[in-house]
Amino acid sequence: MTGPRYTPLAQSLPATVPFVGPETQERARGQAFAARLGANENIFGPSPKAVAAMAQASAEIWKYGDAQSHDLRQALAAHHAVRPEHIIVGEGIDGLLGYLVRLLIGPGDAVVTSLGAYPTFNYHVAGFGGVLHTVPYRDDREDVGALFAKAAEVDAKIVYLANPDNPMGSWHKGAEIAAALDHLPAGCLLLLDEAYVECAPEGTAAPVSADDPRVIRMRTFSKAYGMAGARAGYAMAHPDLISAFNKVRNHFGMNRAAQAGALAALQDRDWLAQVLAQIAEARARIAGIAADNGLSALPSATNFVAIDCGRDGVFAKAVLDSLVDQGIFVRMPFAAPQNRCIRVSCGPQAELDGFAAALPRALASARAG
Amino acid sequence: MTGPRYTPLAQSLPATVPFVGPETQERARGQAFAARLGANENIFGPSPKAVAAMAQASAEIWKYGDAQSHDLRQALAAHHAVRPEHIIVGEGIDGLLGYLVRLLIGPGDAVVTSLGAYPTFNYHVAGFGGVLHTVPYRDDREDVGALFAKAAEVDAKIVYLANPDNPMGSWHKGAEIAAALDHLPAGCLLLLDEAYVECAPEGTAAPVSADDPRVIRMRTFSKAYGMAGARAGYAMAHPDLISAFNKVRNHFGMNRAAQAGALAALQDRDWLAQVLAQIAEARARIAGIAADNGLSALPSATNFVAIDCGRDGVFAKAVLDSLVDQGIFVRMPFAAPQNRCIRVSCGPQAELDGFAAALPRALASARAG
Repeated sequence: MTGPRYTPLAQSLPATVPFVGPETQERARGQAFAARLGANENIFGPSPKAVAAMAQASAEIWKYGDAQSHDLRQALAAHHAVRPEHIIVGEGIDGLLGYLVRLLIGPGDAVVTSLGAYPTFNYHVAGFGGVLHTVPYRDDREDVGALFAKAAEVDAKIVYLANPDNPMGSWHKGAEIAAALDHLPAGCLLLLDEAYVECAPEGTAAPVSADDPRVIRMRTFSKAYGMAGARAGYAMAHPDLISAFNKVRNHFGMNRAAQAGALAALQDRDWLAQVLAQIAEARARIAGIAADNGLSALPSATNFVAIDCGRDGVFAKAVLDSLVDQGIFVRMPFAAPQNRCIRVSCGPQAELDGFAAALPRALASARAG
Repeated sequence: MTGPRYTPLAQSLPATVPFVGPETQERARGQAFAARLGANENIFGPSPKAVAAMAQASAEIWKYGDAQSHDLRQALAAHHAVRPEHIIVGEGIDGLLGYLVRLLIGPGDAVVTSLGAYPTFNYHVAGFGGVLHTVPYRDDREDVGALFAKAAEVDAKIVYLANPDNPMGSWHKGAEIAAALDHLPAGCLLLLDEAYVECAPEGTAAPVSADDPRVIRMRTFSKAYGMAGARAGYAMAHPDLISAFNKVRNHFGMNRAAQAGALAALQDRDWLAQVLAQIAEARARIAGIAADNGLSALPSATNFVAIDCGRDGVFAKAVLDSLVDQGIFVRMPFAAPQNRCIRVSCGPQAELDGFAAALPRALASARAG
């Protein structure tokens, strides 16, 4: 008996995972983490109004979600002063990245990103046969000029830029990105991943018209809004591009409770404001813990902080491994020289206390090793 | 300023939707439906334990879902007496259909299904450039022999068979499907969509080994378990094929509350049993309503009933339009001669009372038109 006949592309792909999840690590350790600070989840959590909306929607979960996410798109359009036709709602930015790559990238098509930037985007590019070209970070920031120059050089169809950046937490002023668009090659779409932008200083979101056909901006309810497990994200772009998602998306793919929760979360501006204040406090606390241990924290416009461990990637990995051994889930950048850092998500005092207690031992262990 | 450069395939696709959702229709009507009987949702709803599990998970929705759906897969494996390696959990059968088609089907690859069978499968096949070949129903049932013969004729990589069938509600004995596998051409995967199988008579689920490389079976929490809006489905197949999903799926794409809800729903066998009893009662009631109006209902192994309106598709469409005008959401088959029927989902007494009240007027209106 023979098995299925895969496409040549599918045959060439590894059965991989962009990230090993914390639950998988916990099962391997045989023990739960004491502090879950590795996945840039927002431990301060969603608005209680969003929780209530999701709980209420659970009782009506026998209904499919609205295929148009109409109410959420209306509210997002009002929030961003655009039209609903400028907005597509999808199953998190991860889901939207997959749809976008599928629409634009076929075997051999060129894509540009930074070396060590978001792996799930790279996973989708590889998954559709695209060829990824990378540009190094400069001073721990994504290098907009070099990205656009590389895009011109390789005739890229997409250039990926996260602002603020993950995993470094660095950022550019939105006006600088808008100005740089003059140097974006024709026929190259700027994919601006603004997953963390709510945590960033005023002026970080790029002032780009939603009718600009050169740019798509992606946002999420996973970070500042604290709803990573709901899988609700959205993209803003020219209506033609937004409409193209209807060619490939799962029209009934949105969880109905997630739709209701996102709408409630969007409307609870007070909750968002106090979460952002807590995130800012936690960033300062993490920087303080780093300093207490003779390390420096990088400035961050996100809900996480990259801590420079002061040596190379091998050393930072030893620090990370010891933290994980001690029950503190953190992650680290993939590429040198950013991988001299560990990446710690913001969280409440108890979690950061755990990190503060574990870090000296982790450093001692790494130095001894 | 130029827009994005789409792939030739994406350029060729229409921005379509396999189904127009009830909310979309309600917005067009300017009025909510009195009875939502068109999408084969399970109005009897999910287990209260599932609702409680989802509500509880909503408070922890700041966490991403477990990328491996470990606990749910363990429970499903025990339930089906297979290993977790035989099971992939995904964002509803719709999501899993997309992943499967992507793994096997590229431009020009042949796929076989029945004329008028599940449109979302066809949507995915078209979306990856596959060429769909159709076989007519025979006596309102999918014609297994003809499907497999057509698969041999066109060298199909996938043959789709829903058992029980949507939209007709008809079914084959599982043993007959297992026996027919001798005639499945080598290199053709049988995609057995068993979305409704919990509603079917004992013996409808095909007795196929999970290690059989020729078959993948898909199941869902959307129908008998009453959780369509959660987006939780699963597939059972040979571990090699299951593992291949890891090449293309969104690893963190599952809603965390949906994972918890599905697990609780699976474990509440009493609730499922009483829902199935209610569905059986509702099927009989719908058949009675049909008979009261001089129409015949087709036998059904699902949570819906196809009612033969006694004339052609134009007449049935007029009946349907009048029902919709009266606030009764129903749907109908797409292809002749099945489109002589309307398709009515099972539901509680109030909804069926609404249908019973509206049907005579709908028939009168269609006969007058």
